[in-house]
Amino acid sequence: MLRHALFAIAALTATAALAEAQPTALVIHGGAGTISRETLSAEREAEIRRDLERALEAGHAVLRDGGSALDAVSAAVVVMEDSPHFNAGRGAVFNAEGVNELDAAIMDGAGQRAGSIAAVHRVKNPVLLARAVMERSAHVMLIGDGAETFGRGAGIEFVEPAYFHTEYRWQQLQDARAREATRSALPRHFAYGTVGAVALDASGRIAAATSTGGMTNKRWGRVGDAPIIGAGTWADPNCGVSATGWGEYFIRLNVAHDICARLAYRGDSLEEAAREVVLRRVPALGGDGGIIALDAKGHIALEFNTEGMYRGWVGPDGRHELRIYRD
Amino acid sequence: MLRHALFAIAALTATAALAEAQPTALVIHGGAGTISRETLSAEREAEIRRDLERALEAGHAVLRDGGSALDAVSAAVVVMEDSPHFNAGRGAVFNAEGVNELDAAIMDGAGQRAGSIAAVHRVKNPVLLARAVMERSAHVMLIGDGAETFGRGAGIEFVEPAYFHTEYRWQQLQDARAREATRSALPRHFAYGTVGAVALDASGRIAAATSTGGMTNKRWGRVGDAPIIGAGTWADPNCGVSATGWGEYFIRLNVAHDICARLAYRGDSLEEAAREVVLRRVPALGGDGGIIALDAKGHIALEFNTEGMYRGWVGPDGRHELRIYRD
Repeated sequence: MLRHALFAIAALTATAALAEAQPTALVIHGGAGTISRETLSAEREAEIRRDLERALEAGHAVLRDGGSALDAVSAAVVVMEDSPHFNAGRGAVFNAEGVNELDAAIMDGAGQRAGSIAAVHRVKNPVLLARAVMERSAHVMLIGDGAETFGRGAGIEFVEPAYFHTEYRWQQLQDARAREATRSALPRHFAYGTVGAVALDASGRIAAATSTGGMTNKRWGRVGDAPIIGAGTWADPNCGVSATGWGEYFIRLNVAHDICARLAYRGDSLEEAAREVVLRRVPALGGDGGIIALDAKGHIALEFNTEGMYRGWVGPDGRHELRIYRD
Repeated sequence: MLRHALFAIAALTATAALAEAQPTALVIHGGAGTISRETLSAEREAEIRRDLERALEAGHAVLRDGGSALDAVSAAVVVMEDSPHFNAGRGAVFNAEGVNELDAAIMDGAGQRAGSIAAVHRVKNPVLLARAVMERSAHVMLIGDGAETFGRGAGIEFVEPAYFHTEYRWQQLQDARAREATRSALPRHFAYGTVGAVALDASGRIAAATSTGGMTNKRWGRVGDAPIIGAGTWADPNCGVSATGWGEYFIRLNVAHDICARLAYRGDSLEEAAREVVLRRVPALGGDGGIIALDAKGHIALEFNTEGMYRGWVGPDGRHELRIYRD
């Protein structure tokens, strides 16, 4: 009896120690690109910092309460989708037809389940539709009107297209059209903008999510890397990544999975893997952008080869950090 | 002078030896699934063998003439898309609306360029549209009506939807609908069927291509692994893969890129990598299917965990081989 009781106490202590030893972590991004102090007004910067902080807090609250990495990344991405300042959800860019065309993906490293949607126009929070595809359909990826039909059946919130109309993005489209008419080169940041989150929960599970409006003035149902599992979004039991970059290059390099494969198969550290892919492989092809990533030990990587990346993280120490520029 | 001339001769000889040493190889598949001698009529089997042989010959002729791996996989896949016997192009399955909805991807390992299309309805050879996206747009993936609009501008051949109507697939849809009405389980082979090719040319370049009609009775714009770069299709300088399986599982495991990453980062042989992914990882999640792959040395892998896989290959020795069943 006593022996059993002692064993039980020892087991409980071990479990408690294990629970304490399991770090939680959250990392988010609101897009990489040519972000500089000259082009970003103080007012806009303050609002962006406020919304990043809200996203970080929404995701971290889930982890603090013992919630899942999946719930944490969903909560963080929803806040950024609801903000008018990021190219996802409400702040999405316009395509060539003047329509907002949204893509998103989510992946749960535990069980390697995934959901993804592309080219929807009326879904308030594309990340929640991607999650419904993962949890409530037999499929991984649904696109276009079909994805919306599924979403209506799954109780997803729909909005009028006007919800996505922001003056900032509308002017960006006019600018892109004018440059196209005069055959001027489009600034690189027209090619991207994304939001994403990766989390590690107290049970050691990793999840990743990404959401985007894609490329300003995009045509022909163009799909970037965000909804491509393995390219812009990936999570497995040991590693998770969300990318934000010039999508074509990120697809061609299978960026998100490649970082995690380097960890699993080469024994690279998360930082080594992220730096090799983002600072060497992507630029070698001519692309740019950035990633956020974390591994099962709570290591966090934030790498980008652009001027800036909206980003924030809460490490195992619980401190919130926010950054925009390179320094 | 003499020294220079001797050096030039030595260099020429070395180049010739290198050229001879560079093997070419081609491997194709026409889909994996529950293919057994009981369910396949002798007549249908003979036609399938004839079309596989034609595809192999079309691709091999390109390689024999010193053409590119990219041209070889295009040629082989076009033959299978034009056949009524495979779930791609003309023989594509029907979706829930009784429409043929086609996906395809192509990737050139040299430069890691890629093109991909999903959910087109009137394109005779989806692989050629994917190739046009790669070669003639700034994008990697185009979907739906937008992809068709791009294709019309790019001179791609269009056909009436009736072109894709085969009685065999139409009956398969009726069967699927009847089973759904009585809540009977759908046989697993309703979940897939694909064609694909991977080639290594005399310059050492690898290319891969995959084309499919997807899943019988599919809904909501479902996209499988075939057009997802990294999942159903992948090529890099050292390795190429085309998959045919239950797409959802192949996306969740990033099958095609994972096999090549195991080669590059773990030093696995092509066979070890292919077996680990197809015979262990995919079944562990509950999925099934197969892959064809080759590496830069001309090693070929054909692995499947189903009863059969339509397949053929021409190795460095130039011999044509065709197989359907496991034995």
